[in-house]
Amino acid sequence: MASQRTLLVIGGCGNLGRSVISKFKSNWNIASIGLNINNESNKNIILPQNQSASQYVSEVKQQLKSFSPSYDAIICVAGGWNGGSIKDSNVFETYHKMHSVNVIPSILAAHLSTHFLRKNGLLVFTGAGGIINNPCHDMIGYGLSKVAVHSLASTMAVSKDMPEGSTVVTILPKVIDTPQNREAMPDSDFSTWAKPEQISGLLKMWAEGNNLPKTGSFAMLNVQNGSVVPEFI
Amino acid sequence: MASQRTLLVIGGCGNLGRSVISKFKSNWNIASIGLNINNESNKNIILPQNQSASQYVSEVKQQLKSFSPSYDAIICVAGGWNGGSIKDSNVFETYHKMHSVNVIPSILAAHLSTHFLRKNGLLVFTGAGGIINNPCHDMIGYGLSKVAVHSLASTMAVSKDMPEGSTVVTILPKVIDTPQNREAMPDSDFSTWAKPEQISGLLKMWAEGNNLPKTGSFAMLNVQNGSVVPEFI
Repeated sequence: MASQRTLLVIGGCGNLGRSVISKFKSNWNIASIGLNINNESNKNIILPQNQSASQYVSEVKQQLKSFSPSYDAIICVAGGWNGGSIKDSNVFETYHKMHSVNVIPSILAAHLSTHFLRKNGLLVFTGAGGIINNPCHDMIGYGLSKVAVHSLASTMAVSKDMPEGSTVVTILPKVIDTPQNREAMPDSDFSTWAKPEQISGLLKMWAEGNNLPKTGSFAMLNVQNGSVVPEFI
Repeated sequence: MASQRTLLVIGGCGNLGRSVISKFKSNWNIASIGLNINNESNKNIILPQNQSASQYVSEVKQQLKSFSPSYDAIICVAGGWNGGSIKDSNVFETYHKMHSVNVIPSILAAHLSTHFLRKNGLLVFTGAGGIINNPCHDMIGYGLSKVAVHSLASTMAVSKDMPEGSTVVTILPKVIDTPQNREAMPDSDFSTWAKPEQISGLLKMWAEGNNLPKTGSFAMLNVQNGSVVPEFI
């Protein structure tokens, strides 16, 4: 029997992270980095909430190394959304939160990939379909943080620090069909929203080397006929 | 005699900030926000080093308001550069520093503009000519932070929170002729570098309503025949 492939999920406790781990667990060894334990993951690294990334990154690397010397795929699905305009008096709080949940985990994924991704491995970032070529008035923190993620992804796709043959793909979800989003937008047509398990299925196909887009791709996740269809932009 | 115009400089103690204040002081009232006092400025707001922007923003607004109810121009020339690759073990420290000196002051400038900029006023951001359309391997923190500044500038140019008729321009310096840069790159041809006083002259022309580019402009600062010539991209 061939040795199992090894996956690192960053954000393994969110809606999308839990779905990715469920989807991959049948035939992958999985390490999860997150704020909580994911019971379906083979290894959990819990980020200390009172420390900055510069404080915990060394410990994270030690724990990852003890689980596996290298990883076939590193998927960053950590993230979050909040609204708010640049004029709001709490603009720095909302920006800071978005920066913490969207940018820092993406930098962590990129950094870890330069140390742990296997040759010909896959690195996935989670961007935002809604802010590509759109100004982000009413979600200034979210917009700025996701622009930084897109820029990081573009850089990693041509980075000399990445292992040979690696592929960097950024998914650009629009609205994901989560309980929280249904509650926030109860009058929407949910059939137009991408389900986490559909996105996870796409990621597993790619991670197993099937129908993989070229490195540097940005995939808008459109829903057509009940299926998530990537539109490469 | 017409009332004096009022300028807010963010980063009034850096090389470019000091030059801007020197250039404008003959006929403008100037408030400076920075880490130190600028003796040529009419008003100084010193940012506390042990507080985050969310902690000091309210106090900054009170002090600005007491100096002038509104400002004709808000110019953000705070910033800094450091190198480093995504693979470096200190990547989060270098990123964090660049984020603090480049992104946070720019968000502050944008936020303050929505509250204090006068109708038909000018908001200037300082971006980076070197990272436009270039991956930023060897200066990952700098690159990501300046991409966020460019995105913020694009958003502010179309923001409904900005006063009527306002103009947002982003300068894109390449290497600025500072003592620090001469020391770091002693073998360079300094005649190709933009001098702070040349950039300040350009900013003063624009701030006084002369030859002002349209809002949303990004101006690469090329040096030709000993003069800084904006190339709009």
